[in-house]
Amino acid sequence: MKVGIVGASGYSGEVLVKLLLGHPHVTLAAVTSRSLAGKSLASVMPAVRGIDRGLKFVDSDLAALAASDLALYFLALPHGAAATYAKALVAAGKRVIDLSADFRISDLATYRNYYGEHHAPELLPSAHFVLPELSPPAWKQEARLVAAPGCYPTSILVPLVPLLKAGVVTREHIVANAYSGVSGAGRKVEEAYLYCERAESTKAYSLVKHRHLAEIEEQLALHTGAPVVIQFNPHLAPMRRGIATTITVPAAPGATVERLYAAWRAAYAGAAFVQLLPSGETPDTAHVVGTNRIDLAAVHDPRTGNFVITAAEDNLMKGASGQAVQIMNLWCGFPETAGLV
Amino acid sequence: MKVGIVGASGYSGEVLVKLLLGHPHVTLAAVTSRSLAGKSLASVMPAVRGIDRGLKFVDSDLAALAASDLALYFLALPHGAAATYAKALVAAGKRVIDLSADFRISDLATYRNYYGEHHAPELLPSAHFVLPELSPPAWKQEARLVAAPGCYPTSILVPLVPLLKAGVVTREHIVANAYSGVSGAGRKVEEAYLYCERAESTKAYSLVKHRHLAEIEEQLALHTGAPVVIQFNPHLAPMRRGIATTITVPAAPGATVERLYAAWRAAYAGAAFVQLLPSGETPDTAHVVGTNRIDLAAVHDPRTGNFVITAAEDNLMKGASGQAVQIMNLWCGFPETAGLV
Amino acid sequence: MKVGIVGASGYSGEVLVKLLLGHPHVTLAAVTSRSLAGKSLASVMPAVRGIDRGLKFVDSDLAALAASDLALYFLALPHGAAATYAKALVAAGKRVIDLSADFRISDLATYRNYYGEHHAPELLPSAHFVLPELSPPAWKQEARLVAAPGCYPTSILVPLVPLLKAGVVTREHIVANAYSGVSGAGRKVEEAYLYCERAESTKAYSLVKHRHLAEIEEQLALHTGAPVVIQFNPHLAPMRRGIATTITVPAAPGATVERLYAAWRAAYAGAAFVQLLPSGETPDTAHVVGTNRIDLAAVHDPRTGNFVITAAEDNLMKGASGQAVQIMNLWCGFPETAGLV
Amino acid sequence: MKVGIVGASGYSGEVLVKLLLGHPHVTLAAVTSRSLAGKSLASVMPAVRGIDRGLKFVDSDLAALAASDLALYFLALPHGAAATYAKALVAAGKRVIDLSADFRISDLATYRNYYGEHHAPELLPSAHFVLPELSPPAWKQEARLVAAPGCYPTSILVPLVPLLKAGVVTREHIVANAYSGVSGAGRKVEEAYLYCERAESTKAYSLVKHRHLAEIEEQLALHTGAPVVIQFNPHLAPMRRGIATTITVPAAPGATVERLYAAWRAAYAGAAFVQLLPSGETPDTAHVVGTNRIDLAAVHDPRTGNFVITAAEDNLMKGASGQAVQIMNLWCGFPETAGLV
Repeated sequence: MKVGIVGASGYSGEVLVKLLLGHPHVTLAAVTSRSLAGKSLASVMPAVRGIDRGLKFVDSDLAALAASDLALYFLALPHGAAATYAKALVAAGKRVIDLSADFRISDLATYRNYYGEHHAPELLPSAHFVLPELSPPAWKQEARLVAAPGCYPTSILVPLVPLLKAGVVTREHIVANAYSGVSGAGRKVEEAYLYCERAESTKAYSLVKHRHLAEIEEQLALHTGAPVVIQFNPHLAPMRRGIATTITVPAAPGATVERLYAAWRAAYAGAAFVQLLPSGETPDTAHVVGTNRIDLAAVHDPRTGNFVITAAEDNLMKGASGQAVQIMNLWCGFPETAGLV
Repeated sequence: MKVGIVGASGYSGEVLVKLLLGHPHVTLAAVTSRSLAGKSLASVMPAVRGIDRGLKFVDSDLAALAASDLALYFLALPHGAAATYAKALVAAGKRVIDLSADFRISDLATYRNYYGEHHAPELLPSAHFVLPELSPPAWKQEARLVAAPGCYPTSILVPLVPLLKAGVVTREHIVANAYSGVSGAGRKVEEAYLYCERAESTKAYSLVKHRHLAEIEEQLALHTGAPVVIQFNPHLAPMRRGIATTITVPAAPGATVERLYAAWRAAYAGAAFVQLLPSGETPDTAHVVGTNRIDLAAVHDPRTGNFVITAAEDNLMKGASGQAVQIMNLWCGFPETAGLV
Repeated sequence: MKVGIVGASGYSGEVLVKLLLGHPHVTLAAVTSRSLAGKSLASVMPAVRGIDRGLKFVDSDLAALAASDLALYFLALPHGAAATYAKALVAAGKRVIDLSADFRISDLATYRNYYGEHHAPELLPSAHFVLPELSPPAWKQEARLVAAPGCYPTSILVPLVPLLKAGVVTREHIVANAYSGVSGAGRKVEEAYLYCERAESTKAYSLVKHRHLAEIEEQLALHTGAPVVIQFNPHLAPMRRGIATTITVPAAPGATVERLYAAWRAAYAGAAFVQLLPSGETPDTAHVVGTNRIDLAAVHDPRTGNFVITAAEDNLMKGASGQAVQIMNLWCGFPETAGLV
Repeated sequence: MKVGIVGASGYSGEVLVKLLLGHPHVTLAAVTSRSLAGKSLASVMPAVRGIDRGLKFVDSDLAALAASDLALYFLALPHGAAATYAKALVAAGKRVIDLSADFRISDLATYRNYYGEHHAPELLPSAHFVLPELSPPAWKQEARLVAAPGCYPTSILVPLVPLLKAGVVTREHIVANAYSGVSGAGRKVEEAYLYCERAESTKAYSLVKHRHLAEIEEQLALHTGAPVVIQFNPHLAPMRRGIATTITVPAAPGATVERLYAAWRAAYAGAAFVQLLPSGETPDTAHVVGTNRIDLAAVHDPRTGNFVITAAEDNLMKGASGQAVQIMNLWCGFPETAGLV
């Protein structure tokens, strides 16, 4: 099966290229980038030197992509741009996995509030937001267009959804602090992302209205049947990759840490990419970077009545490209872990 | 005026040596360390090569220290050991500034609960916990023994105390997430603090019952007249120095971000080491490391009704040795900023 | 085919475990460690959580290892200890790939000069030092015990040997400066390797007589038929993995950079793990970490008459465990790149 | 005495601002920047918050600067731009210390070969290149325009010049490998200097013809009376500040490491900012960053006949702004170390 990547010039694009070049069941047949068209992958992405099969970037020509014999496209484009490509490729009968935010939010007003105009709103009703461990499996048959979740949302939804559904935690006073490696900002050439600005620097940013909040809260509501409002505090940490998220949430009356873990175990039995650490241990970004795993742990604080939940993932893997490949695997009937371990 | 440091082999000891060697009003006359006795400062602390005046470490001999002509001692010893030295030096009429936890907690039962046995409980009633920007000035006349605050507590008390006193925030559902550089663990030679373990790694640790919690909550209660229970989530970030603390706290009914800043301005008018950033900016550890400053900012989140407060300081300066020098300056009648800017 | 690792508690042991767990043609059936016996791999090596097949560390019992049905053992032990295990396992008919220095140096006096006593000198004549891209292929049939090269030696021998053999460079005035990530020191719990000591720190160490010098010069002499003495200056750089080596060597009379590249191309035609970058580019450790590649480039300086040769590799992959797996692949008739791309 | 800085938007400009704000004998009265005019120093340079005396950036208006009552200007401008300002300010009777390359090279043809057109060649004969520890003191009376040395040149000239003059080392086969923190590139907003590109990355760059070579070789020739050609290999290391330089140079016949150190001691007796470490130790960038020191050490290799010399400095202090302040101190009759310890 031949697949392609549209817009592969960023960090998640690079990881996706590497994963697909090493995938046992698909052939990466096209990699597009307006700015890099004509260059070899090996010259732009040193990580793939020697395994790049001589591939070159091609221009992101919509008609050519639609007319090709490729069966599936990953869109690693900025939000806004992705919608246009998704529209044409879906119309041409291609499967599309979109890594941008364009189809993560089903409510158009919410999308506009956070991102501005939408270029293919007519696709929203049929697009599927797929977080593989949480989404009911019907999407595998129904979907033509899948939105892969954002990095922060994955690190919050995976731990929280089963607990809210099981009634182990309250819906109020939820506080999620997340610390992301600098690659979370993409390959933006701005002063704020220079080595000398970020090394030895930790700071909060985009407090109150980070764009991922829209997606987090919509998914929490869809999964649990009622609105959930959370305090989401994103931060930059001086590392390249990884997200460490710490969630404070009041325990439901009578809930224990054992019940919390039981809810997780029920939700994630057999989940290859969710690892539960014993209560008292804490996930570490360094332990998950380069893998598609998300590690979880929790403790109960009898003084405050809160659970403190910790999660760690690689923002470019489980938080982006690894999860997109996992989605492809499930969608196309490959083993879920193919190309990911 | 001659001063000495007892137990200067750690990171805060090293910073303290450097500050005192450059201080315009005191002479660093003795630096003790059991393990380093006989070695030159320059050989152990490369940062002071060329300004070390040929000083050597001497043994931590209690009788000799008590009999010396030094007027003031800083104790940079582990908790437990500090109490013994404090007792003898205070008895000998020396002023003592203790950087350990031994005299930070006035309640003996709380101390024992968090730290174990206390070796000089009879000194607790007369010891002064001094956070210069918050402590009523009478300590300058009364004190013989001063406890300098811990690094995390400083980053939480400075922003929170004026807001609790002014009634701008509630006393409940306070969540403080703090991210510390690795020097916060001291110069511990353990696998967890190796370069290869900590680089590119962010993780929570000591959730639920970190030792600094005792000091934070006792001070919050003393300053505000009633118990305050907080969720304190400490983390390690991959940097050498610096603490970034993010506090989520429900706004009191009707409170605005303007009132919050007004409370801060009232509390910190003229405070040389507290900088208020405009709401919307966020403090950055990289901007305060090497200084004795703490930078503060806050935003209001109309969706959750919370304030999100951010603070950054250098854990070895405002969080330890810089603050100890600031205390000395105030105690001895030197300009508050002497040797610190 | 079942394989085992003896002494897997260090960083290269961890990488080796990960590579063998993912290898398509072998089953990792035993992992030994005196200090970790009884613990699960997943608890000690978080990178393999979820792919560890429930393996536990077992004690390093020589008799049991010799009596097992495993066909091949990797020794990831300190030098000295490795010789004893090699002796017993070779006697039991096992294939042995030793990652230590014990069998890298064929001259016993040289070994003793650099490392001290040798515990199995009788094996030295039949041991094979195998750098896959340089060693004549007869070892695949003849060997029972293979010494995998050191990290620094690989980064110097791969670029230099073909040039010395082709007469493109002189044998004199060779200067090799190498900058290694901190994992090169192994998982040593010493103050020098603490995060706060190594972050933001670059320095030379072990000048004049680093142990790898013995191996580098013996191999240069064996490959080129005459002694070669080089200046080898190792350094520590503030990164976890990677070696960047810069070699200055006078060009032979009339030699050009084109002839230099021609010599490399002749030597490494078809070599999957040697990448030649165009003259003017320079290899970057960040581009090879996580791969088994070594990237090479060179420029000619008409002012000095020197070539400046640059190389980059991952010290734990091509410099240790990746190369050991490559050796196994060639020895056992697997594809050379199996489990390595 | 009032001083000003022209073009203070870069990293060395920021360090210079900080040094001058804390200097006991001068008042920083003007800081110019075209791009930042009108902004407060505190908003742009967080390190000086609280000590910035309310200063704002002003436009770099040549006429206004020349007409001011300031006695001395530092030029922290890009090469090319500096010459124009130097010309006007010198003509107006101001003292000028230029941190750019414009007046470091006395030979116009060499300047043009490395940098292109020169905008004030008529000033070259009277400009003084001042490396305080090496320059004969007459410049203090004669100079109107001083060129402060580059970062790499300082780290090579300080160790080498006394050894060449004393005949302890040969003039041939000198190889200098230098590893610089990323701030050495200035605050360039380019992809190559992003955090994610430079973290965990070491690589050589600008081999063969780095611009600093012109200055290094001209000074070596001027100090020693004959041309010296060296191999200079600059590298980027993953740290913010610091240069670690390792120089390999054949010992002169009969020279010993004792004679080498004797030559250094003779040259640097009383030099506050040159520290000689015992042979066998090696300077560490982490030990000098934040200071104006350069640390030196050397070993002799009996196998190769070379000395291996190691040096470490802070590229923004002794390699730029600290050295510029040291020059001002000497020029204006202040204590050499004023504002620098």
